[in-house]
Amino acid sequence: MTYTLYYSPGAASLAVHWMLIELGIPFEAKLVSIDAGAQKSPEYLRLNPTGRIPAMTIDGKPHGESAALLMLLAERHPEKGFAPSPGSAGRADYIEMMIFLANTLLPAMRDWFYADTDGDPAGAEAVKALARRRIEAAWDRLDAHMADGRTHLLGQELGAADFLATMLMRWSRNMPRPATAWKNLTPYIHRMRARPAFIEVNAREGLSDWQN
Amino acid sequence: MTYTLYYSPGAASLAVHWMLIELGIPFEAKLVSIDAGAQKSPEYLRLNPTGRIPAMTIDGKPHGESAALLMLLAERHPEKGFAPSPGSAGRADYIEMMIFLANTLLPAMRDWFYADTDGDPAGAEAVKALARRRIEAAWDRLDAHMADGRTHLLGQELGAADFLATMLMRWSRNMPRPATAWKNLTPYIHRMRARPAFIEVNAREGLSDWQN
Ligand SMILES: N[C@@H](CCC(=O)N[C@@H](CS)C(=O)NCC(=O)O)C(=O)O
Ligand SMILES: N[C@@H](CCC(=O)N[C@@H](CS)C(=O)NCC(=O)O)C(=O)O
Repeated sequence: MTYTLYYSPGAASLAVHWMLIELGIPFEAKLVSIDAGAQKSPEYLRLNPTGRIPAMTIDGKPHGESAALLMLLAERHPEKGFAPSPGSAGRADYIEMMIFLANTLLPAMRDWFYADTDGDPAGAEAVKALARRRIEAAWDRLDAHMADGRTHLLGQELGAADFLATMLMRWSRNMPRPATAWKNLTPYIHRMRARPAFIEVNAREGLSDWQN
Repeated sequence: MTYTLYYSPGAASLAVHWMLIELGIPFEAKLVSIDAGAQKSPEYLRLNPTGRIPAMTIDGKPHGESAALLMLLAERHPEKGFAPSPGSAGRADYIEMMIFLANTLLPAMRDWFYADTDGDPAGAEAVKALARRRIEAAWDRLDAHMADGRTHLLGQELGAADFLATMLMRWSRNMPRPATAWKNLTPYIHRMRARPAFIEVNAREGLSDWQN
């Protein structure tokens, strides 16, 4: 099993990069700088025709979609328990949570950050306003979900959903109401940011804000 | 394994309803009419706090997110081969495709149909314009993906991704450029609509348009 992750600092690759470090498996990480526009280069487009970060080659074959890469890694390395196994009690909650994060928060974040380049700049404010509403509604929902005192998104165990959720929460750090403004999300964020692999991935990607 | 699906005709429940029929397993289907606003009733909100269709109880416990329900059903009934099994060759493509459909087309369709109620009606045109651009870009991508002559989304075998994709294509039927306008999608759509279980689910939900 060989993995090469194509990442840009702080981009949707961050959750995958972090999880690879948590897994303690060998992998290569290659910088494709969004600041330099490298995600639109012909070489990168061959790996990910959408021109988006991340891409990861798995045994030589390229794949995209951060949420999918997390799910795949979790099932390819079951010994870490980052996903409940098929047929186990928590399995439905896990898949539902991954899909919820992937089809609610990820696209709303895309709208928030890319409204004026994905669409007509004249409409960007309207797109961003709806994105903000949806993002805050998602924090409300996750906050209520954590209100039972669970330490992680799906219970007491660290898993793939935590890497995705924490990355999404990080992206809200300069929004009018960042995820840290929610009562039950704050201790969760602090817990996740204290993980050595989180500190390590920040160092490797050269990120210095949003740390404990 | 007992399943109760809460559906509204033609809503995101359609793919799940169709797959349940394809699986040939016993299930109950309960109508929660969106036209009647029943998805906001206190009883339904207990099943799906987002107030969205579908919800499905699996062994008594309610779950939401159509894409998640399809993935779950596929793995709970592996004998039908609706998802490549973990570790098999097509597994990464399958998860990537499910996530792509779930985080690109599903949210863009939400924007297309609900821009004026999810957000400020004054901004609805801008949100819909971006949604349309994204939906058409997704048809471009799927059309290119089908250009190799494959009969189904992930190759020659019917699977969970086909139920989701066909439902999404159906939703485009009254858009300025419906999915049927794409060269490689047309024969695919005809193939999927010819399935007895597709005809059956249309009959059960009382749908009469968008059929062969
Ligand atoms: N659904 C994709 C979204 C990826 C995405 O939008 N990545 C952003 C960075 S967070 C990107 O590549 N931006 C540069 C661009 O779109 O040109 C995923 O989750 O992998
Ligand atoms: N991400 C959800 C979206 C479900 C959704 O938006 N359903 C629509 C019908 S297609 C709905 O419930 N609309 C009624 C409403 O929002 O009040 C899923 O895939 O299950």
